[in-house]
Amino acid sequence: MVRAGGPQPVGRRAVSLVITGGTVVTIDPARRVLSPGALAIDGADIVGVARPEEISARFTAGQTIDASGQVVLPGLVNTHTHAAMVMFRGLADDLALMEWLERYIFPAEARTVSPEMVRVGTELALLEMIRSGTTTFADMYYFEEEVGRAAKRAGVRAVVGETIIGFPVPDAKTPAESLKRAEDLAREFARDPLIVAAVAPHAPYTLDREGLQACRSLSDRFAIPILIHVAETADEVRTMRERFGLSPVAYLASIGFLGPRIVAAHGVWVSQEDIATLGRSGVGIAHNPESNMKLASGTAPVPRYLAAGLNVGLGTDGAASNNDLDMFEAMRQAALLHKLESRDPRAIGASVALDMATIGGSRALGLDKLVGSLEPGKRADVITVSMAGPRQTPMYNAVSHLVYVSRGDDVQNTIVNGRILMRDRRVLAMDEPAVLAAARKLAEKVREAVKQ
Amino acid sequence: MVRAGGPQPVGRRAVSLVITGGTVVTIDPARRVLSPGALAIDGADIVGVARPEEISARFTAGQTIDASGQVVLPGLVNTHTHAAMVMFRGLADDLALMEWLERYIFPAEARTVSPEMVRVGTELALLEMIRSGTTTFADMYYFEEEVGRAAKRAGVRAVVGETIIGFPVPDAKTPAESLKRAEDLAREFARDPLIVAAVAPHAPYTLDREGLQACRSLSDRFAIPILIHVAETADEVRTMRERFGLSPVAYLASIGFLGPRIVAAHGVWVSQEDIATLGRSGVGIAHNPESNMKLASGTAPVPRYLAAGLNVGLGTDGAASNNDLDMFEAMRQAALLHKLESRDPRAIGASVALDMATIGGSRALGLDKLVGSLEPGKRADVITVSMAGPRQTPMYNAVSHLVYVSRGDDVQNTIVNGRILMRDRRVLAMDEPAVLAAARKLAEKVREAVKQ
Repeated sequence: MVRAGGPQPVGRRAVSLVITGGTVVTIDPARRVLSPGALAIDGADIVGVARPEEISARFTAGQTIDASGQVVLPGLVNTHTHAAMVMFRGLADDLALMEWLERYIFPAEARTVSPEMVRVGTELALLEMIRSGTTTFADMYYFEEEVGRAAKRAGVRAVVGETIIGFPVPDAKTPAESLKRAEDLAREFARDPLIVAAVAPHAPYTLDREGLQACRSLSDRFAIPILIHVAETADEVRTMRERFGLSPVAYLASIGFLGPRIVAAHGVWVSQEDIATLGRSGVGIAHNPESNMKLASGTAPVPRYLAAGLNVGLGTDGAASNNDLDMFEAMRQAALLHKLESRDPRAIGASVALDMATIGGSRALGLDKLVGSLEPGKRADVITVSMAGPRQTPMYNAVSHLVYVSRGDDVQNTIVNGRILMRDRRVLAMDEPAVLAAARKLAEKVREAVKQ
Repeated sequence: MVRAGGPQPVGRRAVSLVITGGTVVTIDPARRVLSPGALAIDGADIVGVARPEEISARFTAGQTIDASGQVVLPGLVNTHTHAAMVMFRGLADDLALMEWLERYIFPAEARTVSPEMVRVGTELALLEMIRSGTTTFADMYYFEEEVGRAAKRAGVRAVVGETIIGFPVPDAKTPAESLKRAEDLAREFARDPLIVAAVAPHAPYTLDREGLQACRSLSDRFAIPILIHVAETADEVRTMRERFGLSPVAYLASIGFLGPRIVAAHGVWVSQEDIATLGRSGVGIAHNPESNMKLASGTAPVPRYLAAGLNVGLGTDGAASNNDLDMFEAMRQAALLHKLESRDPRAIGASVALDMATIGGSRALGLDKLVGSLEPGKRADVITVSMAGPRQTPMYNAVSHLVYVSRGDDVQNTIVNGRILMRDRRVLAMDEPAVLAAARKLAEKVREAVKQ
């Protein structure tokens, strides 16, 4: 419910938006939960987080969102995805990895990936993200400028990583061409309030030493993040050991590649020594529990990463291996998976899972000064989640419910950088029917591409 | 969209309800998927499953549901839950099993379980089940007559198992008293079109040999199912080996307990010999992937159960260890978990997961003559699931989407025994606000009960 503000009393600061009446899960350093709580937002910034009576005493609101029966929390941070791959969701499942890749994903990509496909696919993904409470995502794909532009238009925060890989791809014939694209990307989005350019070497086993080091140089030169897949499968570790006698992590360390701007996706197959190396280098981890399960990759040692002090975020991976972009499912899966793996129900609790999906992810991406918690001075990336239905009744603990019973569709309002992208489940920031129609039309091409 | 039927053309059979325009996933022996398809329902029965033009040529409908953009499938069968425990959802999580039970669940049960609590809790659970497409559930709890009556009032199909356990419980001081209650239950629901009474010995380690055999006798005498927890944890196996020198399954076999009316929940810790024993005895398995993960119990060898020809259904377990009753999540989790466990993405595919949630569950419960697939002659337990949103776009394969991207909230219409319980997400069969209010009031008592 949004209502226009009344006349403005003297002595109170006029702000653009107040969210009040809900339970506010701040993820601030004290992990305060205000029930009820309220949030004052002015322009792009959070300016107050307190009890409703304190907020109404200090601020008058241009707009008010009544969050009664809802939980208000930081927008979720998806640290690893390939947004445009929503176009391949459910195209093929339940296959051995190589058959899946070679019979479906590679042909579909070779025949359909174009600037238009990336734009349409990313817009479809953005709709899904806005609808499920993701306010920041880190992306690796091709024609990544289209991803950045689509995210900017929709108002969603993004780290957009142009893929660099050792063979011809839809947007470049060589790694050098891709690097040039990444550099253009860095220039296009320099100082953008929402979009951060990144360079995304695919993986240590798909790009040679020179390519990896060139990525690192580019990252240093423009002070931009590096997104990379590391140690996703046992096969990758075998390959690297055969080629270099080193684990993927040890190899990357040996060529001077690692550092605090690196976000390593997966990190499933690592030794305790690898974990120590990653920790010393300040590498962030993007943990993708559902994708790792669906592709039968294995279980990343997340409790050990956390014990070693690494910044761990959660990711959905691309929808082709998930098959959606719902970060609530990523939280729930992380909490459940590590209990099972360790045979200890205390392994990853709800609050740790929620931390990873918010502040942990923002730290891994180097965005924690801006987002990941509800604190005055941070950008207003905020979501509200309904707790009013039978599935959420009763509610003894908001954090437990966010992780164990909420899902993306429970999100009612999505706000990024102070802009309301979805209000009461209506997406304001995009033309939803047009995006769906374009995606369905494009899907015909995808279907054709894998027919042969 | 529901519209009244027009004038009735000559030569066509007048039926109560036609569902048309959607993709019909039949789960019939040929696993036909009709896209588009239609379903004719008369009274409680399915009378036609065919192409829309064939259905409209053969039948005139009292009511029509337009399922365009939706998938029509058999209602889901939850083979293991404790419905009233929704009152304890999120009361405590992420604790070692004994602390969770002894500090929270047992005190909450001792101080709050009453006929009223079971009624209110079950009604809350029924709302959630109707809203998430569960049309049959197998329940084990106390005051089970309240569960049966609530399910009957709401119009949901249920197997209601009165718990028999070797210590005093809220509804009985002794197993003998509980057995008497189970016998009363069997008489109350004899020949009921929706409710099947059952006897539910808690587990082989919590009830002595005489108690277990008395349950088996009662089951034989009334031809009713037995619901029992078997081999859920490694501790249980250790306990049974210490006491009897046998695994839980071998022990149950040794006392003549096993047979085709038994539904064994969990079955996590079993040997290949145990699996063979269960198979020879015709025991059905209720697999609860989320609960087994959340409580860190372990992974049931579902691919081996299926290879041995057992009837395997899926269950949510109680909401205290899940924390919801969404069978779509149970399907997805089953598909993901066994891929990971076996390191083979082909282990449990989407179609196998969907089979378990429908026909597999109905076979395990002995209800497959009535429900579990959309075939003429079976009861009309049917759900329709939206595929129209961004998350389900594009749709290349309906079965993949049902398992990998659908969730309970996508269910639009829920029909049991030909009665529409939810239409376009509005629950017709229950007074939702009244149920929620009663549950919230009762939750105060639960909160008090665990305060000490």
